[in-house]
Amino acid sequence: MDASRCGGETVITLDFEKQAGLIPAIILDYETKEVLMLAYLNEASYQKTLETGQMWYYSRSRDELWHKGATSGHFQNVKSIKTDCDCDTLLIEVEQVAGTACHTGARSCFFNQIL
Amino acid sequence: MDASRCGGETVITLDFEKQAGLIPAIILDYETKEVLMLAYLNEASYQKTLETGQMWYYSRSRDELWHKGATSGHFQNVKSIKTDCDCDTLLIEVEQVAGTACHTGARSCFFNQIL
Repeated sequence: MDASRCGGETVITLDFEKQAGLIPAIILDYETKEVLMLAYLNEASYQKTLETGQMWYYSRSRDELWHKGATSGHFQNVKSIKTDCDCDTLLIEVEQVAGTACHTGARSCFFNQIL
Repeated sequence: MDASRCGGETVITLDFEKQAGLIPAIILDYETKEVLMLAYLNEASYQKTLETGQMWYYSRSRDELWHKGATSGHFQNVKSIKTDCDCDTLLIEVEQVAGTACHTGARSCFFNQIL
């Protein structure tokens, strides 16, 4: 068993417990590799994401599952999923429908330059 | 005032309260833009990062400030800092000393492919 896979050679088990039920996911554009946003998945949204091939998050403000794009049309089609060395964070490449990830209308949520 | 800057036109105020004191930071290699890791900053580590120009995190497992590289020599020199649309997540580009961000010895922590 390769311990770095956090669950054996073939099955990777995400550590939702460590993250109080919500695992952060870094979302990249699969073509440009640009960081588009960060959002959180609980186990139910993770299962919906795997089943549907589109991103489902958990909205902390609305306290409910959030199918990204359901109201805006800006769906995210999953292209690849990785987790990190201790399986408590996700890195997901997506095809961003309409090219707009941010609720402000920006392509990426990371537009505030501090330094 | 541009509300999207979460603190006015010139000062950006990070929303530590929303994140229960710990803001996640996505760390990129400043040259290749590769995602190296994700870790958490509290206000004290954020101030140390700004003051020193190197990454300081908050270690949740050790419950203390964590100067990345202090024991391994794998310091991270800060090249740029952005925050997202609601100022509760950081995106930081670094020069990764020795090219190794992960405690496993891997360049990036994201080496576990799920899909």
